[in-house]
Amino acid sequence: MNILDIIAKKRDKNELTKEEIEYFVKGYTEGMITDYQASALVMAIYINGMNEREITDLTLAMAYSGDVLDLSSLGEVVDKHSTGGVGDKITLILMPIIASLGIPVAKMSGRGLGFTGGTIDKLESIPGYNTNVPVDKFIDNVKKVGISLIGQTLNLAPADKKLYSLRDTISCTESIPLIASSIMSKKIASGANKIVIDVTCGSGAFMKSIESAKELARVMTKIGELANKETKCIITDMNQPVGHSVGNILEVIEAIDILKGKYLPEDVKNIITELGSNMLILAGKANSIEEAKGKILENLSNGKGYDKFVQLVQNQGGDISYIENTDKFSKAKFILPIIADKTGIIDKLDALTIGKLSVYLGAGRMKKEDDIQKEVGFVFNKKVGDKVQKGETLGYVHANDERKANEVLGMPLYDIK
Amino acid sequence: MNILDIIAKKRDKNELTKEEIEYFVKGYTEGMITDYQASALVMAIYINGMNEREITDLTLAMAYSGDVLDLSSLGEVVDKHSTGGVGDKITLILMPIIASLGIPVAKMSGRGLGFTGGTIDKLESIPGYNTNVPVDKFIDNVKKVGISLIGQTLNLAPADKKLYSLRDTISCTESIPLIASSIMSKKIASGANKIVIDVTCGSGAFMKSIESAKELARVMTKIGELANKETKCIITDMNQPVGHSVGNILEVIEAIDILKGKYLPEDVKNIITELGSNMLILAGKANSIEEAKGKILENLSNGKGYDKFVQLVQNQGGDISYIENTDKFSKAKFILPIIADKTGIIDKLDALTIGKLSVYLGAGRMKKEDDIQKEVGFVFNKKVGDKVQKGETLGYVHANDERKANEVLGMPLYDIK
Repeated sequence: MNILDIIAKKRDKNELTKEEIEYFVKGYTEGMITDYQASALVMAIYINGMNEREITDLTLAMAYSGDVLDLSSLGEVVDKHSTGGVGDKITLILMPIIASLGIPVAKMSGRGLGFTGGTIDKLESIPGYNTNVPVDKFIDNVKKVGISLIGQTLNLAPADKKLYSLRDTISCTESIPLIASSIMSKKIASGANKIVIDVTCGSGAFMKSIESAKELARVMTKIGELANKETKCIITDMNQPVGHSVGNILEVIEAIDILKGKYLPEDVKNIITELGSNMLILAGKANSIEEAKGKILENLSNGKGYDKFVQLVQNQGGDISYIENTDKFSKAKFILPIIADKTGIIDKLDALTIGKLSVYLGAGRMKKEDDIQKEVGFVFNKKVGDKVQKGETLGYVHANDERKANEVLGMPLYDIK
Repeated sequence: MNILDIIAKKRDKNELTKEEIEYFVKGYTEGMITDYQASALVMAIYINGMNEREITDLTLAMAYSGDVLDLSSLGEVVDKHSTGGVGDKITLILMPIIASLGIPVAKMSGRGLGFTGGTIDKLESIPGYNTNVPVDKFIDNVKKVGISLIGQTLNLAPADKKLYSLRDTISCTESIPLIASSIMSKKIASGANKIVIDVTCGSGAFMKSIESAKELARVMTKIGELANKETKCIITDMNQPVGHSVGNILEVIEAIDILKGKYLPEDVKNIITELGSNMLILAGKANSIEEAKGKILENLSNGKGYDKFVQLVQNQGGDISYIENTDKFSKAKFILPIIADKTGIIDKLDALTIGKLSVYLGAGRMKKEDDIQKEVGFVFNKKVGDKVQKGETLGYVHANDERKANEVLGMPLYDIK
């Protein structure tokens, strides 16, 4: 077997065997196959596609290219993943509720990159919270309180990391086979046997159209089936930010407020019940979607989800006085109102625009090395579909730099019709 | 302009502008664009193609990426090129005849690589012949005797060199747009205004099928038209070796014998008259193909072609006593007969097989650094279509290693039916 024949095969739109895909992934990870050879093959895959069997073999080869977490001592772990978005604090709300319903939650999350936030950055907004714990401690934590959320402390799917960086430099990011295998390889390496994936769709997501989101969902479900990792994909809207807040501390506060039962935005309610009910059914903890949704909302309103969140934070070394009293969190220096410029109904509150401006304010990073400002971001009182009066406050910009805050206020943040 | 957009455009099967193609070629030659980015674009070009305008712009950008030879002081130079083959000594025979007819011949040739021989290796078989002369001396030589054949002493089309090497490592050699632009860029950089190209076709050529040869010929003719370099392509057979000999010294001896009028193999006659007549017409030295063919054969039979060859060799420092008496050339240690294993008609004498076995014997190189043995190769008394008796000698293997010679004799060199 050699890489030239493998490249030529895909170049000519032929199917690659499992052995050929494994040869490529191993050779590339170990550096025997060069970047320019991988690049040619990736472009051929982008243009000529892969069938479901090939995508599954690629996924498994990448999943097993590094460490694979063994969670078998925890029983059946159901993992949750989101393809990313703006204001997406769903993990912080849903996973404690799931743990409170008796399903072990052992989840390694990532940091934010580009306009998409990351769960680890949000958790680190809580003083003392340690996201960097060794695997045995991680598993002990789950055994002790039923939940642990940490960063990627293992060398998970290094082949995927290498290919993902390469794709970024050769205009090959938006390929369904490559996106699907990338996501699923990380999930499989993370040790889950059953997976629920939130396929975000809209301006603030990778998938801009409902067709591409459906196709990605279909392919990932199929990979799960072929790889014997039962997978359920839920497509959710990412045209406007999720919930009311965008930014690390602001999203943590919103998640705590929701867990405390202070309020429940309609979109957050829909996402946590949709994802959560599917997780319960996969775990055998409910027989119908309706029953499962009821359990999710019950453990939200009776405070069991909140209690689990407090246990999680305490167990990871976090200071729970911040959870009990969110006023303790540090605040941005400038909190300026966003004022409606006319009377009408909010027609647009563009997730991509808000996401990019959040990064501009310092809430996110464009490169991995960038520092972030945990206090900055946006809070919206009104969202798409809400009626507003001219002069009414729609929301607030939270910034540490007054000039930047005013610049952001001068941008078209919303459309009223 | 940036390389990511250019890659994405070709990935999506769109047409690249002249500026985008120039940006890529310049950036890649200068090292601003990486090998893996070039690799992705080359694969996208391979799969999605290029139209004639794009191919022409690619050709010109590569041609002007380094030195461009200025031959204007010589008048109208008609260049000749072959897409390569086995036993192809046409340049050695035809170009002296062309020069003897008053057309200046200033030609930079290459070395052999793989199973394809190279004119420079053959010329260097003549003791003293200097293929490495500076450009001013090269042009002076043409002014003095009407002909000079040398190696590539200038930095001609470095972009093509870089892309050509890359293509070899990513299974992207057999692409008509890339082959056509590679050949034409070198020809344009070599300073010719009018070009006749021998598009070889068959097992011993890059183009295996008549359809692909026709397509390559069509595209190169079109590039010539768009680049204002009148180009004529002739498709010739390369299923069996050209003439009777394969190997450096053996081919030089055959070329000398033909120029001396000792014999003229039918295929050599056809190729030199086809190519030569088109060169004469392009140069305005004949009005019809028939008239031109007559002139070629006349200057072969009256010895003017041979005289010009002697002048060429003498002028480049070669020892003409070897030309006058070819017995002086060194000989292989073992010259073993190839014996017909049955009575019948030769149905196949495969150029690719003979070419590869010549390399195995030491006549050619697989890598640029390899040394070659100038004496070794094959001589065939019989070719396809000839009748043979069982036990008759078809030809000879010339080898310096008896074991290799016997190994070669054990291979299926021919088919008799």
